[in-house]
Amino acid sequence: MPVFDRVTIVGLGLIGGSLGMVIRRKRLAREVVGLSRHSATIRQAKQRRAIDWGTTDARTAVADADVVILAGPVETIIPTAKRLAPLMRRGAILTDVGSTKGAIVRALGRLPHGVQFVGAHPLAGSEQRGIAAAKPELFACSICVLTPTRQTNRAALRTVRQLWTRVADCVVTMDPVTHDRVLASMSHLPHVIAFSLMAATDASARAIAPRSFLDMTRVAKSDPDLWDDIFLTNRAPILAAIDGFTRRLAQARAHIAASDRAALQQFLRHANRLRTNLCDC
Amino acid sequence: MPVFDRVTIVGLGLIGGSLGMVIRRKRLAREVVGLSRHSATIRQAKQRRAIDWGTTDARTAVADADVVILAGPVETIIPTAKRLAPLMRRGAILTDVGSTKGAIVRALGRLPHGVQFVGAHPLAGSEQRGIAAAKPELFACSICVLTPTRQTNRAALRTVRQLWTRVADCVVTMDPVTHDRVLASMSHLPHVIAFSLMAATDASARAIAPRSFLDMTRVAKSDPDLWDDIFLTNRAPILAAIDGFTRRLAQARAHIAASDRAALQQFLRHANRLRTNLCDC
Repeated sequence: MPVFDRVTIVGLGLIGGSLGMVIRRKRLAREVVGLSRHSATIRQAKQRRAIDWGTTDARTAVADADVVILAGPVETIIPTAKRLAPLMRRGAILTDVGSTKGAIVRALGRLPHGVQFVGAHPLAGSEQRGIAAAKPELFACSICVLTPTRQTNRAALRTVRQLWTRVADCVVTMDPVTHDRVLASMSHLPHVIAFSLMAATDASARAIAPRSFLDMTRVAKSDPDLWDDIFLTNRAPILAAIDGFTRRLAQARAHIAASDRAALQQFLRHANRLRTNLCDC
Repeated sequence: MPVFDRVTIVGLGLIGGSLGMVIRRKRLAREVVGLSRHSATIRQAKQRRAIDWGTTDARTAVADADVVILAGPVETIIPTAKRLAPLMRRGAILTDVGSTKGAIVRALGRLPHGVQFVGAHPLAGSEQRGIAAAKPELFACSICVLTPTRQTNRAALRTVRQLWTRVADCVVTMDPVTHDRVLASMSHLPHVIAFSLMAATDASARAIAPRSFLDMTRVAKSDPDLWDDIFLTNRAPILAAIDGFTRRLAQARAHIAASDRAALQQFLRHANRLRTNLCDC
């Protein structure tokens, strides 16, 4: 039996499209509706079975939805939420998939029309983008972080958790500030590093890129337009993460420069132990 | 028809074992002999079809070999080469698979008994080690770098190239100093980064490691004993590579700190273009 009557997904890209596919496959909603500015995207989303139907008209898309999921680029979430909330059913649920949470959760704490906002961030994605890259397996082995505050309506939180429990592998709850700090160090920093490492190579070196280099820079294939937004909306935590990493790198450098095998060994063993204890899923 | 009569592999770990498997599968030699200090390793290598037979006795292993391949840890290569060369057939070929080349090629320029040394480095490996992890596919899509100097015997170079052309996907030639500089930036630096990034995390962050983080730190699972040797035998080029990367990272940091979207965009687009142009194989 479907959990929801109508779920509307706003933004039919990699995440929105994949999410629609999972909701439809698992029959979590009677109906999945897509809202996009581009009718070609709607056609493709329908063809790929990511939505039941779609529209470019905001009112048509959200008026009768139980849950509206904002799956567009992170910098569009606040303005889109403010534009859509007045068009939504009184008391309906608005949620998002944005990669940074502090600013969004602060801005959407109280919405018109009694609409209840719950911040969410599925840690899924790839260096690809767009509905063409969408796939239901995108959320396999993934974690979804929910970021409620004291203002968050508990029933709405339960509903959003119910949705993500059926979609992701694991759902965790974190306050928005912790989320942004953790994501800065575990996702945004690796991206800054990948772009910087790639930029640091010269042509003769790039001719012989081994597997370790290719894996490490894979995310530098990610869309620059998406990532400058993430970097700028989560500025302070990312700067702190870069500084923490730079200090560790300077430590490693000092051990190598001093040919201090014992200190280098200890440094490498510690990192090796931490990595070995992580689950690769 | 086999290219070689007898190839002896010294050190039956991940690389040595995998190389033996390929040489045997492709029948590049009439006979593959293994030399190891541990008879258990020899038994396992034989069982896994990495060698035809093995011994713990150096003289027995190398006396009648056309080609002896040093596949032990990088810091053992110089002393092992000096120990084995006097036991080898006059004019036979000695080669290696060491990840750093400058010091090795300098030390082994002129060997006793007319033995001809050719430096080689297959860019293959994984975070695993040992004969248990060996597999013939290790060299699929891999590059092997040969590092001849003016002293290198041309016939010996041709023979070693002939071997690697049949094993790796692509064989390139580079002088040892360029090799060490390129490898510092494309392999050793990514490893230093992976260990440092892992060391910079805290426990709450590690609880939600996304794919990008896991991929980026995968090589921190590599053996610390192997990597401290590589870092210390290729010290100067690695320090230069760390410094080059640190400058790029500081640039990215400055653009984020200044909220300079245009400069950040340009930085990310440049790196993105470079990465997109790399072959992922």
